[in-house]
Amino acid sequence: MEFPFMTYVGLLAGILTTISFLPQAVRAWKTKSTKDISLAMFLSFCLGVVLWVIYGFYTQNLPVFLANFVTFILAFSILVCKLKYG
Amino acid sequence: MEFPFMTYVGLLAGILTTISFLPQAVRAWKTKSTKDISLAMFLSFCLGVVLWVIYGFYTQNLPVFLANFVTFILAFSILVCKLKYG
Repeated sequence: MEFPFMTYVGLLAGILTTISFLPQAVRAWKTKSTKDISLAMFLSFCLGVVLWVIYGFYTQNLPVFLANFVTFILAFSILVCKLKYG
Repeated sequence: MEFPFMTYVGLLAGILTTISFLPQAVRAWKTKSTKDISLAMFLSFCLGVVLWVIYGFYTQNLPVFLANFVTFILAFSILVCKLKYG
């Protein structure tokens, strides 16, 4: 199965922006401190990421769909921490 | 000029995920406190967003290109705050 070169660039982009939320999620869960994190950011971000998932699905854009699907899980867990720890 | 419906969903997704970084950037600049923000997140995120911009440009994907272009400016300013305030 061959993909255009830019699909790989998109996948790498997706991997980087997606895994970036992992250290933030781990930090929030571990420290139980989310004072410096903006609630407005994660509310707006999670809603936007849901729309990216829908967009990626219907336009059959694999990098956009996959990246945002995993990003949602991580970003939502940070949002939960923020709502829990303030 | 007409676009497919999903282009509008993508643009709305892009607007939401992009503007989400604004309250975080403002908060970091104002409070000068970024202790709870993960450096690893913003390093990986900024690099990934640069790749999304390249991907959006070469695949002529307007929502992906535009959203990530502005996101980079905002996310990079948060990274600068994190490097400055620790």
